[in-house]
Amino acid sequence: MKGRGYLRKGLVTVVSLFVLNLCVGVFPSLADEGMWTFDNPPIKQLHERYGFTPTKEWLDHVRLSSVRFMDGGSGSFVSPNGLVMTNHHVGVGQLQKISTSEKDFVTTGFYAKTQKEELKCPDLEVNVLVSVEDVTEQVKAAVKKGMNEEDALKAQKAAMAKIEKESLEKTGLRSNVINLYHGGEYWLYCYKKYTDLRMVFAPERQAAYFGGDFDNFTYPRYDLDVTFFRVYENDKPVNSNHYLKWNAEGAIKDELVFVSGNPGSSDRLFPYSQLEYLRDFQYPLILKYIKKRIEILHEYEKKGPEQQRRALISIFGLENAKKAMSGEYQGLLDKKLMEKQKKDEEAFRKLVASNPDLEKEYGDGWDTIAKVIQKQEQVAKERFYGRISGSRLAGIASTIVFYVIEIEKPDSERLDGYHDSGLDGLRFRLFSPAPIYLDMEEANLAGGLQLSMEELGPDNPFIKMVLNGRSPEDVAKELIQGTKLTDVSFRKSLVKGGEKAVKECSDPLIVLANKLEPMIRKDIEWSKKNIESVLTPAAEKIAKARFAVYGKDVYPDATFTLRLSYGAVKEYSMNGTKAPCKTTLYGLFDRALSFNRERDYDLPDRFWERRDKLDLSTPVNFISTCDIIGGNSGSPVINKKGEVVGLIFDGNIESLPGRFVYDETKNRAVAVHTGYITEALRKLYDADTIVNELEGR
Amino acid sequence: MKGRGYLRKGLVTVVSLFVLNLCVGVFPSLADEGMWTFDNPPIKQLHERYGFTPTKEWLDHVRLSSVRFMDGGSGSFVSPNGLVMTNHHVGVGQLQKISTSEKDFVTTGFYAKTQKEELKCPDLEVNVLVSVEDVTEQVKAAVKKGMNEEDALKAQKAAMAKIEKESLEKTGLRSNVINLYHGGEYWLYCYKKYTDLRMVFAPERQAAYFGGDFDNFTYPRYDLDVTFFRVYENDKPVNSNHYLKWNAEGAIKDELVFVSGNPGSSDRLFPYSQLEYLRDFQYPLILKYIKKRIEILHEYEKKGPEQQRRALISIFGLENAKKAMSGEYQGLLDKKLMEKQKKDEEAFRKLVASNPDLEKEYGDGWDTIAKVIQKQEQVAKERFYGRISGSRLAGIASTIVFYVIEIEKPDSERLDGYHDSGLDGLRFRLFSPAPIYLDMEEANLAGGLQLSMEELGPDNPFIKMVLNGRSPEDVAKELIQGTKLTDVSFRKSLVKGGEKAVKECSDPLIVLANKLEPMIRKDIEWSKKNIESVLTPAAEKIAKARFAVYGKDVYPDATFTLRLSYGAVKEYSMNGTKAPCKTTLYGLFDRALSFNRERDYDLPDRFWERRDKLDLSTPVNFISTCDIIGGNSGSPVINKKGEVVGLIFDGNIESLPGRFVYDETKNRAVAVHTGYITEALRKLYDADTIVNELEGR
Repeated sequence: MKGRGYLRKGLVTVVSLFVLNLCVGVFPSLADEGMWTFDNPPIKQLHERYGFTPTKEWLDHVRLSSVRFMDGGSGSFVSPNGLVMTNHHVGVGQLQKISTSEKDFVTTGFYAKTQKEELKCPDLEVNVLVSVEDVTEQVKAAVKKGMNEEDALKAQKAAMAKIEKESLEKTGLRSNVINLYHGGEYWLYCYKKYTDLRMVFAPERQAAYFGGDFDNFTYPRYDLDVTFFRVYENDKPVNSNHYLKWNAEGAIKDELVFVSGNPGSSDRLFPYSQLEYLRDFQYPLILKYIKKRIEILHEYEKKGPEQQRRALISIFGLENAKKAMSGEYQGLLDKKLMEKQKKDEEAFRKLVASNPDLEKEYGDGWDTIAKVIQKQEQVAKERFYGRISGSRLAGIASTIVFYVIEIEKPDSERLDGYHDSGLDGLRFRLFSPAPIYLDMEEANLAGGLQLSMEELGPDNPFIKMVLNGRSPEDVAKELIQGTKLTDVSFRKSLVKGGEKAVKECSDPLIVLANKLEPMIRKDIEWSKKNIESVLTPAAEKIAKARFAVYGKDVYPDATFTLRLSYGAVKEYSMNGTKAPCKTTLYGLFDRALSFNRERDYDLPDRFWERRDKLDLSTPVNFISTCDIIGGNSGSPVINKKGEVVGLIFDGNIESLPGRFVYDETKNRAVAVHTGYITEALRKLYDADTIVNELEGR
Repeated sequence: MKGRGYLRKGLVTVVSLFVLNLCVGVFPSLADEGMWTFDNPPIKQLHERYGFTPTKEWLDHVRLSSVRFMDGGSGSFVSPNGLVMTNHHVGVGQLQKISTSEKDFVTTGFYAKTQKEELKCPDLEVNVLVSVEDVTEQVKAAVKKGMNEEDALKAQKAAMAKIEKESLEKTGLRSNVINLYHGGEYWLYCYKKYTDLRMVFAPERQAAYFGGDFDNFTYPRYDLDVTFFRVYENDKPVNSNHYLKWNAEGAIKDELVFVSGNPGSSDRLFPYSQLEYLRDFQYPLILKYIKKRIEILHEYEKKGPEQQRRALISIFGLENAKKAMSGEYQGLLDKKLMEKQKKDEEAFRKLVASNPDLEKEYGDGWDTIAKVIQKQEQVAKERFYGRISGSRLAGIASTIVFYVIEIEKPDSERLDGYHDSGLDGLRFRLFSPAPIYLDMEEANLAGGLQLSMEELGPDNPFIKMVLNGRSPEDVAKELIQGTKLTDVSFRKSLVKGGEKAVKECSDPLIVLANKLEPMIRKDIEWSKKNIESVLTPAAEKIAKARFAVYGKDVYPDATFTLRLSYGAVKEYSMNGTKAPCKTTLYGLFDRALSFNRERDYDLPDRFWERRDKLDLSTPVNFISTCDIIGGNSGSPVINKKGEVVGLIFDGNIESLPGRFVYDETKNRAVAVHTGYITEALRKLYDADTIVNELEGR
């Protein structure tokens, strides 16, 4: 699943304003459906459908072998010496950051034959989920009878911040309170966190991303989308006692497999009014924006090969988001899908209405949400474009300006994202030494401002404040060429200097961020008061109603936290015929030659030179019915014995509306076969050290 | 295009009653659209789009190198010694007929190393189009002013029969008057006819039909769907001076190519009322029937391997028809497609209405048709099921009964199909020595009667006459076990004995056919009077209006006569990505292994044994935008030089609604690459004699 993880990165600000958590859980499922929390695995379904019951030890082992990439993505330990496997497209951001115009590891690939040669990543954080605890009662107890909605929201947030902070102080672990079932439950998730990761192996992007944007989100596929990192602590590889044993035989047709990973976000059983909002406002808005951003970068990369290298990963992320969201949008435009969602909601509401107690308690949840949505529609476009977008430096400036104000307040009163429990991570990203390309920053910033101006008009307060009659190009040039924020020590000095230093700072990006800060704050406060504080209890009502009606045989929507999916290796109907459950190396060469080895369909030279050495019947990619979504990229595919048999990297095109509805007849998770990884490492890359480590020799 | 040709065979009786020729020509085309007659090739489009203008010599050469298979299908001469290439699936019927339970050439393939070993086909006729002549005036002159519609139809038919008869007597050629543009034009087509064809080469069906019903009508594909026959006259191979030179290099991406073949029937720009009829009546009716027929045969083939062999080709034909018609039906259910057809018709009618002369002359054509369609709807089901179906012997009986009556009449007064000009062909089929399997006949007949009874009820006159309270099984058993019609000399003696012998005959199938004859005749007369005689002039009006409004830059709908299509070798968007314009042998092995060599995806042993000898980068199949439809199976794909570069065998799944609308963005014709044929003949089949003949050595 090519990083809807990436979407998280590039678009997190704009998107998060619009994707409000309204989802209300799901109906008890009859298919290989669900992204289950490890505390509530689908025991019944596994037993009934596959005659398998995972033990507590099995679940613990899988959980502790699983890794979350904070950039967006998943992975797993595959050796006792900290070797972590994930997708190339999850690791490619770091690959780019350790590359230069002279040494472009994205193009050439990377292989450290010895641990000494392993290269440290500038700003990569991974997490292992160590413990979970139900804190629903504590969070809900914060809301006292008679509080108004705004105060209730505030109290609840304060309680969550407090739990996180206390846990952090007590355990030293990354501590997050997670909202599951959209207010149905709150859980404290504690993670062991690692920030010293070193690059061990990556193939050429040409092999990893074979088929390019065309083949992205499709199947049959032929990608070597794998990267290995090693996790260090105190400058030594960690002892990863929990790791998945390597099984290069893979899984056979109809075999039960599992996926353990961190699906980012899903909107299954959104209230219908919210789906209409997504369809009529959010998706058209964001898709237009993404297309524009891609145009800007295509214009930029015309300047030369180095610009092309710099823009590559951003373009990939945007193209990926475009294709993913277009597929999701198609789901929303599908009348049958929408009709089904509507009917399901009507049936649910009817059951609630048939019980006077439930109706009284929860019955008004849907109408409340429908009304709030109307308010949201009115501000959607202005909020979306009334922001600086596309520039990492502008983001840094804004974060610094808010940071120095927020940390002066008591923890409970701060804006989301500035609580004590999260400051370590915030600073890790804020002070990242990763390269920033000024000419690309300028192009992005100018393009974003241009689009905002076109959409909002010159009289809009945001446009006036930023441009004041000048051209986007001029303003962007002045801001980027004038800023010193590329210098990490300068960022540190501002943070250290606090509010006073920041207010007095003459750096043009900081000056602008200072000017924009009250406007942004006003918008956030408005949204809290008018939207979030109404939505939160309304969604909670629906969640409670769902528990009351359907019990807890349901899984919560994805929240970029660890989940277990299950399913079978299975063919599906496609394009008038059926898609096989695996592909082979024969197919890789077929597809390359079918397209006459054109751009996206060429392979690195080593593939052609060593073609005769390969066992061409080696499986390359395979599919299963496991229910996944963006964020699952890099997740291991695991068999009943707890061995790794594959590496999730995508979903088929038919799975994109899976954001809203899972359909076992056509949703498929696409994985790299472990057999291909072994064959490639050994015969194409001479990377025997890794194979030996994987095979425990 | 897996034999919608076959559909012609198996279902010709039932279907022809329902597919009335209402089509009214097409709009001038802007894409690689059209199945053009050789007298009116798309010179302008070819020049504008491809800068190529075919000469008269080029066109004559291509026409005279092209061959029509009367069973349904197309082919071409590919050597000066009468070697004809067509699809395996076009030749497979003959392959089965020369096979026995001991020697099953369908399974094993066939190769005659010398001419002596070539095996004669029992009942195969092919035609070469020698001359065409516009006879519109003669046909239309037969209709005198003041004639009522019935008399007009009769006069017109009589004129056509006369033209055919005179031509046959004068030239000795198969002579057919063809209705083009649905009454817009009538042409006399004269064919050189060959009935001595001998089997030269066929691969195993496993290689020809790799992927089975699953992959049928889809792409990417990997089929060796080729068969070679040799045409004999006077026991010697004919000198085929016009033949297509072999070019194993094939065509490259975007290259202009042509298809010369015999598309069976298309319904582009049917009046909208007729499309609704197809959607609401005809397709549901026929699809239900086909599914039932398949069930009957699946039940039959359970009896053993020999039954399986006997049923194989029938099942293939039915499965093929099911898939083709399901795809067409999807087109009719596609609201966008129907909306487009509606709008096109409205625009056309508006243009007609804007000219008072045209409006007066032709304006009522559409409403007349819409009214007739309502009549047709009322009898559709009863007509469809009020017939003996599925039994070849019952068909022979019926033909004999009608034959002996009709030939006593003057030629001009006979039913369609019994005119002098066609009697030779009728007798060729009627007296075919091809094997008939009694147990399969019985199963088919019983199953068909059972279905008719279920659909029409026991009180229906047809059911009463045939079953009279007995079970379909009993009646079928008695009829099939009692008949002697498997004996060709018995059929001949009946025909020779004439009406008297037939009326007195006690063969149970003849007795039944005698009883049914008046009922069928009544139905035909009713249809002529109430439907055909009203439809024909109404359709003619629309055709004339179209000529008046759009000129003659249009092509007529397909009529199983020779047409020229053109287009480019071109990729297309598919399944979220794009489909390459060719596949390779790598892909063949990939697909086989991807499905673990299961049933439809296994290959003959020789493929596995000789895998290493093959150049796996050899192209296997390729696609072009050429506009084709069922009947084009076996057509050569020809380059500008007039060389053969491929062999049409299918269309992609997206092309099935092409029966109604051609869409250049997704309709693709699928062909076997000449390079694969050469590679396979030489390295897999050791058939060097054929390669040498093809290459002119």
